[in-house]
Amino acid sequence: MIRLHVPDALAAGAPVSPSPEQSRYLIAVMRLAIGSEVLLFNGRDGEWRATVVEANKRGCRLTVGAMTRPMVQGPDLDLVVALVKRGRLETIVEKAVELGARRIRLVQTRRTNADRANIGRLHAIATEAAEQTGRLDVPEVVAPEKLDRLLDGWPADRRLMFCDEAGGVPPALAALTGADGGPWAVLIGPEGGFDPQEGERLRALPFVTSVSLGPRILRADTAAIAALTIWQAAMGDWLTGS
Amino acid sequence: MIRLHVPDALAAGAPVSPSPEQSRYLIAVMRLAIGSEVLLFNGRDGEWRATVVEANKRGCRLTVGAMTRPMVQGPDLDLVVALVKRGRLETIVEKAVELGARRIRLVQTRRTNADRANIGRLHAIATEAAEQTGRLDVPEVVAPEKLDRLLDGWPADRRLMFCDEAGGVPPALAALTGADGGPWAVLIGPEGGFDPQEGERLRALPFVTSVSLGPRILRADTAAIAALTIWQAAMGDWLTGS
Repeated sequence: MIRLHVPDALAAGAPVSPSPEQSRYLIAVMRLAIGSEVLLFNGRDGEWRATVVEANKRGCRLTVGAMTRPMVQGPDLDLVVALVKRGRLETIVEKAVELGARRIRLVQTRRTNADRANIGRLHAIATEAAEQTGRLDVPEVVAPEKLDRLLDGWPADRRLMFCDEAGGVPPALAALTGADGGPWAVLIGPEGGFDPQEGERLRALPFVTSVSLGPRILRADTAAIAALTIWQAAMGDWLTGS
Repeated sequence: MIRLHVPDALAAGAPVSPSPEQSRYLIAVMRLAIGSEVLLFNGRDGEWRATVVEANKRGCRLTVGAMTRPMVQGPDLDLVVALVKRGRLETIVEKAVELGARRIRLVQTRRTNADRANIGRLHAIATEAAEQTGRLDVPEVVAPEKLDRLLDGWPADRRLMFCDEAGGVPPALAALTGADGGPWAVLIGPEGGFDPQEGERLRALPFVTSVSLGPRILRADTAAIAALTIWQAAMGDWLTGS
């Protein structure tokens, strides 16, 4: 069944007016008619069934029915990722949503060429991925910030998994097995890696866990997906089977 | 340094003539001149340094110098993947190379729409990914075959990790921890999953290990990358740190 993220409050009987784009998708593309059902979520109230009660050229209207899933949030895992090329960054956002990251923070590093990103487009990709993957929330995509500044203000209680290509570090799985629960983040550098001074600073920070992602050189998107996967498998919501 | 896959035998002093495309890349794009060095590998003889000894409009010639890495092969891990949409299939091939799959076998399932793939293009993607990721071989991309037929001829000594969306299966990491070494394969179905009869057959096969990839619905490319990552982390060449 079609899932849509909406800003509206969701409760039995509540009216919901999808955006013009969503209405077009429901009526013109998916050919829903009056009486058709969809699933709605808003990041706060869980997932609800809703019925199309009006559909015309100006849009459509829905009425919320029963709750299908109560609100639950995944683990408190952020992805901090350097501004890589647009196509790969978009892949990373889509995959981070599927892999359950709660927030996606963009950073500029010394070897990053770009200093901006189209946050609106990345947010749209995150929303579509959340609808498709079955999440009950859409991760926030946070505008780029300089790495040094991000580290200056880093909260002491959030661990940071640093995928360190410089060598001499344990495998990610071994480093995470039995590690402290609580808030975490995964840090992925640009293609070409971190500058040596950035690496040194990271390794010396008390909240950083340096890990290896195997013997081959990984592209940034592969590294992001692999690191989030290992975190979820070792200490996140992949610990329980289905 | 630039790495190139070549078909030639590699030994100290051997002459190597890169293909016209490779020559164009080296001379016109990367602006190498006589005396410049590259790294060569062929899947058999390890990795060797080579020097440009001739460069003109018709191409370039190299002479092999010293060996930089002896030949080693990664674990015997195949990826068996349904024919998904072209863009996602290309992503899967690139990532499977980075994640150390030895062979990529394409399959048609009951819910697969396509019945062919551009093997030449997928091979080119695999070659470029192998050059970039630092591998010493290029995984073979095997032309599509029907899933039922593939299973009929499956070798008894190769385990098959089946990423089963139907539920009631253990997490992939738990299922693989302490599992038998030896040849393995990862099976990834089409978007929309396997048909129930295919799922039943797979679950009943003695060489199949059914696993869960977490609570969210994953796209085929995400599932392929996540499954290969967990296999490498739990029993492959990511077990050792860097």
